[in-house]
Amino acid sequence: MEEKDVIIIGGGPAGLSAGIYSVRNGLKTIIIDKGVCGGLAAEAPWIENYLGFEGIKGMELTERFKSHALKYVDINETETVKEVKKTEDFIVTTDKNKYTAKALILATGTIHTKLGVKGESELAGKGVSYCATCDGFFFKQKKVLLVGGGNSSVIDAIHLHDIGCKVTLIHRRDELRAEQSLQKTLFDKGIEVIWNSVVEEIMGGDVAAGVKIRNKLEDKIQEKEFNGIFISIGEMPSNELAKMISVNLDKNGYIVTDKRQGTNVPRVYSAGDITGGVKQVIVACAEGAIAANSAYEDIKNPYWVGKESEANG
Amino acid sequence: MEEKDVIIIGGGPAGLSAGIYSVRNGLKTIIIDKGVCGGLAAEAPWIENYLGFEGIKGMELTERFKSHALKYVDINETETVKEVKKTEDFIVTTDKNKYTAKALILATGTIHTKLGVKGESELAGKGVSYCATCDGFFFKQKKVLLVGGGNSSVIDAIHLHDIGCKVTLIHRRDELRAEQSLQKTLFDKGIEVIWNSVVEEIMGGDVAAGVKIRNKLEDKIQEKEFNGIFISIGEMPSNELAKMISVNLDKNGYIVTDKRQGTNVPRVYSAGDITGGVKQVIVACAEGAIAANSAYEDIKNPYWVGKESEANG
Repeated sequence: MEEKDVIIIGGGPAGLSAGIYSVRNGLKTIIIDKGVCGGLAAEAPWIENYLGFEGIKGMELTERFKSHALKYVDINETETVKEVKKTEDFIVTTDKNKYTAKALILATGTIHTKLGVKGESELAGKGVSYCATCDGFFFKQKKVLLVGGGNSSVIDAIHLHDIGCKVTLIHRRDELRAEQSLQKTLFDKGIEVIWNSVVEEIMGGDVAAGVKIRNKLEDKIQEKEFNGIFISIGEMPSNELAKMISVNLDKNGYIVTDKRQGTNVPRVYSAGDITGGVKQVIVACAEGAIAANSAYEDIKNPYWVGKESEANG
Repeated sequence: MEEKDVIIIGGGPAGLSAGIYSVRNGLKTIIIDKGVCGGLAAEAPWIENYLGFEGIKGMELTERFKSHALKYVDINETETVKEVKKTEDFIVTTDKNKYTAKALILATGTIHTKLGVKGESELAGKGVSYCATCDGFFFKQKKVLLVGGGNSSVIDAIHLHDIGCKVTLIHRRDELRAEQSLQKTLFDKGIEVIWNSVVEEIMGGDVAAGVKIRNKLEDKIQEKEFNGIFISIGEMPSNELAKMISVNLDKNGYIVTDKRQGTNVPRVYSAGDITGGVKQVIVACAEGAIAANSAYEDIKNPYWVGKESEANG
């Protein structure tokens, strides 16, 4: 049984930033990641909006993050947390070890829901994207296909249109799930929709070139050219550990946090994509820093809880 | 009269990050700063906790931020906003020009309250610091003096002690303003307090070496050696413009924001130190990004307001 002050679960930008702040506050801290550090940010082909880096590959940025964090904090990669338990402290059991901690920071992120079609994984980051906010800018004046029909899909389609992409939406049914007002904006802007259709295959060589589309009513397949294929059929928050200790989730499964990144469970904090909101690297890093600071305050001075405004005075 | 979509007031990390996100969302945006870009971050002698930069001078980091932002957004330096007015849109009058905007992002920051003694400005960043969180780490195992007596001063003193500094607190009266529980922690930790005393002068050559202290009861002056002098006698939020358009402030004068960085005034957002909370560069940058995204949502699709959770679905 290893004793820690703070255990951070997840080594994406949120977890790495939290690790730095936590150790700098003098707390015995460890980051545990079931795979390798970097999170979804490592998947991004190119990141241009993390202040300080005009343009950098996602993988390169997250590697910089990791080497920065390693100056301070122990990172256990390829270690999977199997169980989290709340006693007076917390007991974290992994496939390799067992730990106690006074505070937990859940930075477990999300995973993109995949289409599961031929060409999708091969062309991911080469024209196939799961994030219009991150990658839309690269497809200005180009033809993009947006796969989906919910609110966030329509928001993405409008966003891509507004920044100058030639957008087509494809949806498997004859009406969208998105709310009426969003649909109205979509139609007002003249964004084309291919109804009752699904993507059967994504084609391309070095980069994506188009898709095979199957019309479900006519059971007819046709090929169409696109430079970008944005898949927006949802994300799944990795909330299994949160559930084990009864952390409150919103209706989409994201962890509910307050302004201090605290959850409903004392000394459990959360940061990054798992908390929903604006899923951007810079936001995850900030949330990690805030979570680490709150953990420090609550461990060292439990009476501070909820008194931050006075603390500023 | 120049027409803009978004006007960002303040060119610190929050404003620069907001500028990038705003322009990438396709909005006509300008950043106005009364001095030069960088904000208080530019004052920091050395920054080690902005993820991606293991160690960099504050000024160097903010210069990178500025050149990054300039790839996207127009920045007007040495232009002072004289008046902000809310009509259907906003009218911003500066000492050089007049603008309209559909949304405002207030990133006006704070200024440290200064002691106003000899040696203070000369040795700022050379042993004299206004931020224990930022700079405490540099004074591990060294003798530091903390000037102040309120909650945040005592929090700073405890923080410095916990990370291994040899801390002395100096306070002008015979009791602290800080709350009892904080005082108890301070005394339990054995942190020395010099009562009824004020700093008369900060001494040093290239770096700070000590202070002249005047005991107010005995009116006696003595010299004491310190490596670090932390001045924690408050900050003043630069909230003059916020007041002009009736933006809600908390009791310390910081702008009250929601999770979208929105204020009580529709289409007025705020980001960075002016919103209080954890005053760190990474947090300011994230808040800027979120504010810009919220401004985009509300300008383009006003019915989104307050519906972000659905938007994730």
